[in-house]
Amino acid sequence: MKIALDAMGGDFSPQNPIVGAIQALRDFPDVSIVFVGDEERVRKELGAHETKGLESRITYHHASQVVEMGDNGLESVRKKKDSSISRAIDLVKNGEADAVVSAGHTGALVAAATIKLRTLPGIDRAGLGVLIPAQDGVFLLIDGGANIDPSPKHVVGFAVMGSVYYQSIVGGGEARVGLLNIGSEPGKGTEFCKECYELLQEAPIRFVGNIEGHGIFKKPAEVVVCDGFTGNIFLKTVEGLAKSIFSWLKIELKQSPWRMAGAWLARGAFRSIKNRTSTDEYGGTPLLGVNGICIKAHGNSSPRALRNAIRAARTAVQLSINTRIVEAMKPLHEKNSSRNTIEA
Amino acid sequence: MKIALDAMGGDFSPQNPIVGAIQALRDFPDVSIVFVGDEERVRKELGAHETKGLESRITYHHASQVVEMGDNGLESVRKKKDSSISRAIDLVKNGEADAVVSAGHTGALVAAATIKLRTLPGIDRAGLGVLIPAQDGVFLLIDGGANIDPSPKHVVGFAVMGSVYYQSIVGGGEARVGLLNIGSEPGKGTEFCKECYELLQEAPIRFVGNIEGHGIFKKPAEVVVCDGFTGNIFLKTVEGLAKSIFSWLKIELKQSPWRMAGAWLARGAFRSIKNRTSTDEYGGTPLLGVNGICIKAHGNSSPRALRNAIRAARTAVQLSINTRIVEAMKPLHEKNSSRNTIEA
Repeated sequence: MKIALDAMGGDFSPQNPIVGAIQALRDFPDVSIVFVGDEERVRKELGAHETKGLESRITYHHASQVVEMGDNGLESVRKKKDSSISRAIDLVKNGEADAVVSAGHTGALVAAATIKLRTLPGIDRAGLGVLIPAQDGVFLLIDGGANIDPSPKHVVGFAVMGSVYYQSIVGGGEARVGLLNIGSEPGKGTEFCKECYELLQEAPIRFVGNIEGHGIFKKPAEVVVCDGFTGNIFLKTVEGLAKSIFSWLKIELKQSPWRMAGAWLARGAFRSIKNRTSTDEYGGTPLLGVNGICIKAHGNSSPRALRNAIRAARTAVQLSINTRIVEAMKPLHEKNSSRNTIEA
Repeated sequence: MKIALDAMGGDFSPQNPIVGAIQALRDFPDVSIVFVGDEERVRKELGAHETKGLESRITYHHASQVVEMGDNGLESVRKKKDSSISRAIDLVKNGEADAVVSAGHTGALVAAATIKLRTLPGIDRAGLGVLIPAQDGVFLLIDGGANIDPSPKHVVGFAVMGSVYYQSIVGGGEARVGLLNIGSEPGKGTEFCKECYELLQEAPIRFVGNIEGHGIFKKPAEVVVCDGFTGNIFLKTVEGLAKSIFSWLKIELKQSPWRMAGAWLARGAFRSIKNRTSTDEYGGTPLLGVNGICIKAHGNSSPRALRNAIRAARTAVQLSINTRIVEAMKPLHEKNSSRNTIEA
């Protein structure tokens, strides 16, 4: 299996993508990596690491440009045709790679993937499906920020795709799907929320109603759907608050020798919570709905997180996630087309 | 100063409002309380507590109805005219009380206050201004959920009101105002966000641009504005995650005797963080923009939180918050009316 890795994406590139790729190559013998980016820089960085025995599974695809954080995602597809993101997606489009992994510009990745790979049959909008730690395991939030202004119909697509992905990757029975909202009763929220609620009730999923932020970490649902604006606000708030609480705790624990001794005795508990809330282990957010496997890693991904993003890509390919999504969307289309027939 | 207290509001009523009121009466000798609600129940509950020396500052106003959580806020104003919330607001409207405090139905409180008290001159929509703990002190989020579908112009009003409230209550120089968004650069977010950004740049406030959830707790701004849907999602997420992290930590700390000993030694640190993130101390969220002082307490408020909500009402009255808001809105109107003149 060949995975196209955007070697120039993320805050610590090309180092972290390269070190993460080496770890993945060691851990997953069926994976080959195409490093997409400034070939000279990539070769130089790779040369600084031990890659003995892995060379046969490493190739290069030169790309002269990089999408910068200040660039407009959509425009970058047109203006930076030779960017590492665009070229990596081209490889998937042309069948030269099975999946793409990038820690680069989210908007550029979403735009390039949607334009070049197109969406799957029956899907109009792709959505970022983010695994988030909860009381008991993880839940999946979709959309994490691919589409800030979707229609309620798109949200139904997110629900179906999220259910398929969750069941395939995490397992368990049929995933419960909740709508992120500001009240638990039906009829709460904006007009958009109300329309989503109605459509979700009729969709081929296990819809359990509205879910509020204060109950969400008790995992009342395996899949939580929302528009990409709300989802992105949610994700960044969670990330910011978790980091802040731990940094406040660290400061407090250093206030006296007793506290420091206590912290040392209890260090296993802190490590365990830190691991649980770390995004590294869940590294790799699938852009669900595009016709190709496309995994977004966090911009500040560690090598470990990038290794796990490559693992996520590998799993998605192995499980034929996209075939499953197309299959799961069928009942919705049959219903819609029979409706159209009746109406016609 | 007379404060109308909704004795029937919140998850633990009438106990918590009554115990909180007794604490407030003890701590603030200039405060009198009108208990609004089922007079018999209120008298009975009050009888179970020591109120010696406070009787002269306690009065009752009977209300036969209670707005339940399942009720529609707006409809409740019409359908439950004799609710404790509506009656408490009537007292402010008729000049029989200086402020109202309620831990009851948020939607009902917002609707009743807006309809009965009307908005201040120059303000079209009221907003809930919520103080949230940050790295260094607190910041104010407005709107926390009073209006889920405001216009960008309303958000400018939130910014001005939030600045006035923050400076009056917390102090410091001119408050920095940020727009809650999904990217820091100008031009990020929905069309609504972009319009807010433009208007905020021209407003008589210290606008510092977009603010993302992951940086917000480092307090890049004293005031953060957004629509009430996004604000409510943000607040509930913060509340849910903070609670979850502490409950996960508690479970982990009980996993071994060493960890338990460590937790005991470091208990001061946990207490300090818990106090810092507790909503009790910031109990009392002002509904800014209505023509009267109106403080919302959290539905699950402890007596301490209700005591602090009464304190917040007292401070708002003492500082003539509404006069200050009207004053601060003036430059905006002068600008608008001169524009209208030019355009005409």
